[in-house]
Amino acid sequence: MDKTLQMYIDKLNSLNFKEMYNNDFFLTWEKTDDELETVFTVADALRYMRENNISTKVFESGLGISLFRDNSTRTRFSFASACNLLGLEVQDLDEGKSQVAHGETVRETANMVSFMADVIGIRDDMYIGKGNAYMHEFMDAVTQGNKDGILEQKPTLVNLQCDIDHPTQAMADMLHIIHEFGGVENLKGKKIAMTWAYSPSYGKPLSVPQGIIGLMTRFGMDVVLAHPEGYEVMPEVEEVARRNAEASGGSFTKVNSMAEAFKDADIVYPKSWAPFAAMEKRTNLYAEGDTAGIHELEQTLLAQNAEHKDWCCTEELMSTTKDGKALYMHCLPADINDVSCVDGEVEASVFDRYRDPLYKEASFKPYIIAAMIFLAKCKDPQATLKALEERGMARWFQA
Amino acid sequence: MDKTLQMYIDKLNSLNFKEMYNNDFFLTWEKTDDELETVFTVADALRYMRENNISTKVFESGLGISLFRDNSTRTRFSFASACNLLGLEVQDLDEGKSQVAHGETVRETANMVSFMADVIGIRDDMYIGKGNAYMHEFMDAVTQGNKDGILEQKPTLVNLQCDIDHPTQAMADMLHIIHEFGGVENLKGKKIAMTWAYSPSYGKPLSVPQGIIGLMTRFGMDVVLAHPEGYEVMPEVEEVARRNAEASGGSFTKVNSMAEAFKDADIVYPKSWAPFAAMEKRTNLYAEGDTAGIHELEQTLLAQNAEHKDWCCTEELMSTTKDGKALYMHCLPADINDVSCVDGEVEASVFDRYRDPLYKEASFKPYIIAAMIFLAKCKDPQATLKALEERGMARWFQA
Amino acid sequence: MDKTLQMYIDKLNSLNFKEMYNNDFFLTWEKTDDELETVFTVADALRYMRENNISTKVFESGLGISLFRDNSTRTRFSFASACNLLGLEVQDLDEGKSQVAHGETVRETANMVSFMADVIGIRDDMYIGKGNAYMHEFMDAVTQGNKDGILEQKPTLVNLQCDIDHPTQAMADMLHIIHEFGGVENLKGKKIAMTWAYSPSYGKPLSVPQGIIGLMTRFGMDVVLAHPEGYEVMPEVEEVARRNAEASGGSFTKVNSMAEAFKDADIVYPKSWAPFAAMEKRTNLYAEGDTAGIHELEQTLLAQNAEHKDWCCTEELMSTTKDGKALYMHCLPADINDVSCVDGEVEASVFDRYRDPLYKEASFKPYIIAAMIFLAKCKDPQATLKALEERGMARWFQA
Repeated sequence: MDKTLQMYIDKLNSLNFKEMYNNDFFLTWEKTDDELETVFTVADALRYMRENNISTKVFESGLGISLFRDNSTRTRFSFASACNLLGLEVQDLDEGKSQVAHGETVRETANMVSFMADVIGIRDDMYIGKGNAYMHEFMDAVTQGNKDGILEQKPTLVNLQCDIDHPTQAMADMLHIIHEFGGVENLKGKKIAMTWAYSPSYGKPLSVPQGIIGLMTRFGMDVVLAHPEGYEVMPEVEEVARRNAEASGGSFTKVNSMAEAFKDADIVYPKSWAPFAAMEKRTNLYAEGDTAGIHELEQTLLAQNAEHKDWCCTEELMSTTKDGKALYMHCLPADINDVSCVDGEVEASVFDRYRDPLYKEASFKPYIIAAMIFLAKCKDPQATLKALEERGMARWFQA
Repeated sequence: MDKTLQMYIDKLNSLNFKEMYNNDFFLTWEKTDDELETVFTVADALRYMRENNISTKVFESGLGISLFRDNSTRTRFSFASACNLLGLEVQDLDEGKSQVAHGETVRETANMVSFMADVIGIRDDMYIGKGNAYMHEFMDAVTQGNKDGILEQKPTLVNLQCDIDHPTQAMADMLHIIHEFGGVENLKGKKIAMTWAYSPSYGKPLSVPQGIIGLMTRFGMDVVLAHPEGYEVMPEVEEVARRNAEASGGSFTKVNSMAEAFKDADIVYPKSWAPFAAMEKRTNLYAEGDTAGIHELEQTLLAQNAEHKDWCCTEELMSTTKDGKALYMHCLPADINDVSCVDGEVEASVFDRYRDPLYKEASFKPYIIAAMIFLAKCKDPQATLKALEERGMARWFQA
Repeated sequence: MDKTLQMYIDKLNSLNFKEMYNNDFFLTWEKTDDELETVFTVADALRYMRENNISTKVFESGLGISLFRDNSTRTRFSFASACNLLGLEVQDLDEGKSQVAHGETVRETANMVSFMADVIGIRDDMYIGKGNAYMHEFMDAVTQGNKDGILEQKPTLVNLQCDIDHPTQAMADMLHIIHEFGGVENLKGKKIAMTWAYSPSYGKPLSVPQGIIGLMTRFGMDVVLAHPEGYEVMPEVEEVARRNAEASGGSFTKVNSMAEAFKDADIVYPKSWAPFAAMEKRTNLYAEGDTAGIHELEQTLLAQNAEHKDWCCTEELMSTTKDGKALYMHCLPADINDVSCVDGEVEASVFDRYRDPLYKEASFKPYIIAAMIFLAKCKDPQATLKALEERGMARWFQA
């Protein structure tokens, strides 16, 4: 057997992830450390196999349903790529961006679309208190449908971003860090700054910073969350970060200055987001259909943002990081000064220097999603990887 | 060979369905009894194979074209699932909901999209006198294209709902009944009530009640059609039902009372629809682009509907059915009292009690569609089923 | 080995096309004569294999990305068919019809959607000076991404129509001509008239006439371009046509009369297009967001068109062609007198007589696209064709 693949399988043999089979992926902090490492390992293994032209199609037929309540190009293509890699055909469930009905309608729709669905990927990040709840409602319905003999299989959920977490993003980011630092064992004591940055737009989801502090605190790193006053993230996620840091022997700190956060940082992740309280207010305004209120809130938030134009990832700030060479990260697209806007999250020269690593960071997402699906769908992942290699079907037939 | 699969094949050996090869599925009453039984048998066989993880992909490549002139989630996913199960990739032909051009344009479009198409599924139910005609026009074009050597294969039509019939719905409903009653041989003398029910919306297609009375009258059942005066369905379909009933030794009766229809019924199917005459009028108003007229008609119809709020499937009415336990059916989504509306087609407690059977009823549709495709595309279905089993390719690769 | 397939392979063995591997298809005149003949040969071979039920799936997984900046049914389905024939799943990148951002955004999007993409098909024909440039920008980005280790493969570009050329159309048209005239060797000295024709719409792209004169001049034919004064095509493409004609021993002539162009022609291609200068103006008006200006330009152009209603492919004109039997061609849909409009590009009786050849002409496009992909993706196309035959997988499983 191929040595690298055997290495991945050996690693899997050392981990406990038996709860992942036939399960779902909602939030990273609902998973054990072993389970997260399993996802990273399978993601690397699937990538390795694709690079070596070994087909990892485990499905001859089956649907991957995508439900996006917010525009998306990157995540949409990542999900489509992951499904395709495993043999599933994507079918969009297009319900528009409106807040959808709950109760009977969700239960029914969930079952009606899932007769031949193996995966369901949902992005529902716009409404605080709703996105994750919707996903649970959906999954409860299909789990029941499967138990009642209506669905021949239970589709697995991949949370493609909710109001609380963005697990496929945070996991892809983490896998990028692991590769950049040469292994998860090298992360102890590293400082990562998740900081707010100015953007001329408003209402960017909180799930990225929340996903980052909820995940990065599990590897013994010193995680610093920085933002201007008034840009708080959900308190329960901060609590998660605090507990994680304690358990992992790292730390979780909050500061109100970008400079302080960047000082000697090994990794910086400067990114705009909307204040939690404002997003909660917006959710209510949408629920009430208060268009004037929504417009007014937008103006207020843009004005509030504009007071913090100095929160920008400049060359000057970058020079204060560890050896002036912290790893710059972003979920993309970034608001780049004088490129996509006048004042934004990052100076063009910083972004340019890190373009390759940024693109690589993004390249892990399809594999993270594929790994989540693979682990929910394969009863014995090690044996399956081995069998796929033995099957020896080329992804790309070459004579 | 697997015994259950052999049983299905034995059944097929006893039926005459040789006309189905390379043919289309427009209306159930254009098919012989044997042909309908063939569809049910193949649907069950395909489901059995999927449940036993045997891939039924008969196509390595090929397109399934879907053309929806009306919104659809259920039927869209059923069609996508069926195509995917057989190996075809769905490609949407999106022409919007407008009444489309005929003649040259249809002939041309039909050929242009069909160079590699094996199936075409069309839903065109909104315009009386047009939907079924459009399907014929489309199929005449590709049949000619195939004869003239332009198309290397003739795609088969699956009627996903027209102005006259909804054959995939009615067939799925029937297969559900067959399973619930333990076989088609147990249906003789059973009473089924297809009745109108109140809904706060208007303009629901006639093709469901028409499909039901056009199909259910073929199995020796006592079919009762009930609706308030003014909610007549197409007279030619009633005529079909009458002839069917005579031939099958059952009956077809019309009443103007829900209570009378429900009395001692074994099966009830309470569902709203629009009056035939009003839909005909609406078709003309759309053709004339008379927006004011359309709006006025809508108001008139809603007011007319509202006079019949007592047409609701209540617990009280259910208690008058056979042993108080008639099988409640619906094509979904239903208008449920105090759930999706104040007054609707059915009381919530009735709906709740029948949720599982309702979902199961819906679960047959992908297999009915797949069976229709399979029978139009496989010259020797029995040999193909056998060969698929022998091929032994897993749908879901497990090690 | 199958004799016909061997014949195609023999032909390929005589041609030099080694530059096509891992390359793109922008413009026909950037390709050598050998390369074009290679595309024709592979297109014929793939069609032959499909007709003989041999699967030509070279991909077990992989995406074909389509990006349409203009409405399209024919080309969309041709691209989908070609991808599906080779095993790729189409995923739409929907950016609307607006002029898209350049620079950073294009570079980033190109990479973000291409992690598992093997092909990218782009249609961007509306804006003069932009479409082809955009394609290059996109491909530069993914080529760099592949070099930098971000993309595991470089997707190949298929130009599905730009502002300059419509290579898949022109190549399909040419393959149709080759088949109609019994081989490319019979084309020397044949007269083909690419002429403007009246249409009641405006703004039809220039890329069809440009594609035709840029390609047909390479086979020793006498190519005549005819249009009313003011309907000039891009001067640089005329220059290409002139140079081609010289090199191939044919001719390229311009006239301002349909009658002169049709006289003794072996092939006629009457089709409407917009004046180059006006399209350039429109591009600028769109860039400036000048809605009033765009509307005014439309009125001016429609009035200008209306002065040339006599530019119609009539029976009378057809009778002046070689033996009154020139091959009539069109990219479809055509504006047909008294069918799709009162006055249009062609009389109904002419169109009717040529319907079959017109549909056949269109039927080559999916295979031309598939051949372009195949040649960019198979290092040894001859060996691959042979191996596909030996693999003996049926496209359509029949028992």
